[in-house]
Amino acid sequence: MSLKCIGIDIGGTSVKLGIFEEDGTLVKKWEVPTRKEEDGKYILGDIAASIRRTVKESRLELSDFSGAGMGFPGPVLPDGHCEVCVNLGWKAGNPQQELSRLLDGMPVKSGNDANVAALGEMWQGGGKGYKNLVMVTLGTGVGGGIISDGKIIAGAFGAAGEIGHLLVNKEETQLCGCGKKGHLEQYASATGIARRAKEVLTNSNEPSALRDIKDPDAKAVFDCAKDGDKLALEIVDFVGETLGTALASISCVFDPEVYVIGGGVSKAGQILIDTVQKHFVAAAFHASEGAEFALAKLGNDAGMYGAVKMVL
Amino acid sequence: MSLKCIGIDIGGTSVKLGIFEEDGTLVKKWEVPTRKEEDGKYILGDIAASIRRTVKESRLELSDFSGAGMGFPGPVLPDGHCEVCVNLGWKAGNPQQELSRLLDGMPVKSGNDANVAALGEMWQGGGKGYKNLVMVTLGTGVGGGIISDGKIIAGAFGAAGEIGHLLVNKEETQLCGCGKKGHLEQYASATGIARRAKEVLTNSNEPSALRDIKDPDAKAVFDCAKDGDKLALEIVDFVGETLGTALASISCVFDPEVYVIGGGVSKAGQILIDTVQKHFVAAAFHASEGAEFALAKLGNDAGMYGAVKMVL
Repeated sequence: MSLKCIGIDIGGTSVKLGIFEEDGTLVKKWEVPTRKEEDGKYILGDIAASIRRTVKESRLELSDFSGAGMGFPGPVLPDGHCEVCVNLGWKAGNPQQELSRLLDGMPVKSGNDANVAALGEMWQGGGKGYKNLVMVTLGTGVGGGIISDGKIIAGAFGAAGEIGHLLVNKEETQLCGCGKKGHLEQYASATGIARRAKEVLTNSNEPSALRDIKDPDAKAVFDCAKDGDKLALEIVDFVGETLGTALASISCVFDPEVYVIGGGVSKAGQILIDTVQKHFVAAAFHASEGAEFALAKLGNDAGMYGAVKMVL
Repeated sequence: MSLKCIGIDIGGTSVKLGIFEEDGTLVKKWEVPTRKEEDGKYILGDIAASIRRTVKESRLELSDFSGAGMGFPGPVLPDGHCEVCVNLGWKAGNPQQELSRLLDGMPVKSGNDANVAALGEMWQGGGKGYKNLVMVTLGTGVGGGIISDGKIIAGAFGAAGEIGHLLVNKEETQLCGCGKKGHLEQYASATGIARRAKEVLTNSNEPSALRDIKDPDAKAVFDCAKDGDKLALEIVDFVGETLGTALASISCVFDPEVYVIGGGVSKAGQILIDTVQKHFVAAAFHASEGAEFALAKLGNDAGMYGAVKMVL
């Protein structure tokens, strides 16, 4: 029997776990709650206990696994050291060493969750077949991951791929979540799209189906745009221009083969891709105009897949 | 006797050549003209003949060399293929294979000149001791090179590090050399700084030492700024803000340890570094604020050094 791998994606409310074959087949997946109390001291123990239980239930042994990969929402140095993980409450430590110890020395590798998700999409998702890609995650915020020659670029300070904080508007007066202003995340996240919708509806008298919806969210904007609603189409075009232009700047730095777009906003589908790509081509340096655009395919499982890919 | 290496940097008017020890010592350097006529068909032959002559004069043999590295101003694929090199007149071909053939099979590696210069500065220049850096070349235009874990990031379309074409001003009406608008190169190059000086002097009535200079260039602007001239200091601050803010965006993508600033404009020295870094820190994502800034040290020799580093 060939060896198996464990993929772990630690989020702020739950930990996603999966048993994988080395060819990328997901054999079994489950979740455990993320207990953040007391500086997150129970998280790794809960994970190890849950893995032991599930491995036993599956009539396997820990020795049937070649290793485990783990993504979590913080900066990770190449040796696994994490100085601080605000979202989980962790202080300076080495979570991968700790988990390895809890699993009888099983090899464990770790990485930042957005970067690990990018690796997952490269391996088994929207970026399959490519080795140089940028993953763009449009959710409550905007995240990203950079994969170069099949490997994660983590950055000297763990901030590579933090593309939500690209400056796109010097005139912005409201603050980004990071404390500075005018960042991509303020316009291309679900939150940013809803904010734009509110502004446009307030500043215009034009009729729009969006006026019949209380506090229209990003999904409502894209749904109305697909129905041809003029104001909704304007908002979508604004989002596409902001994002497409920002990606053109990313191409001047890293020049990927493909942009993989994921996160909740990406459920809008082809209309999003088409609008972003149109503005990307208009703004991009000529050599990079041919970069591909694809939708992410693995959804919330991307982190587990990428975590496994790290140990293979 | 340990083996030596040859470094070659092909520019639009001359080819710089150097014989190096493998420890980075430059033993001998010389130049030959770049003959661009007839689609640049003589360039590689001239280089090979010149190398043979100089090697013989130095009482060496081609077999005393472990290889040659070559930088040239065009996009280069990992196998050495170059689809087109406008500046030299070259059409699709493999210059490194061709030069290897002309040198009795000596191993030859090649890369884009800006990327190769970045590698040179990492090895023996302003970026010595670092493995993740971005080189920023402020000359007639603005070029760049990205080094990740000691290796060049070339990009899927050979456009990685083309940071001169980062969009920094959507309102710009004049065209960048690339045919699009509002790019970093239009503000932070020597040309861009001279243009800004002209605009500021025209639009203001304030006295300035710059008014005594016919068509003040970038050097004049920095010289007057060092003397405390108020208008010149304003121009320097504008250039520093434009560049520092753009580098903050680069940190959201690649997050280097250090920015190495070179090119003719960098002769301004510490005032340039200080102004750029001040605006970088103000704009950067918090994790990346500690990136270092250094002046390039190798001047026009950086390409030769980087070329050699490629073959080691």
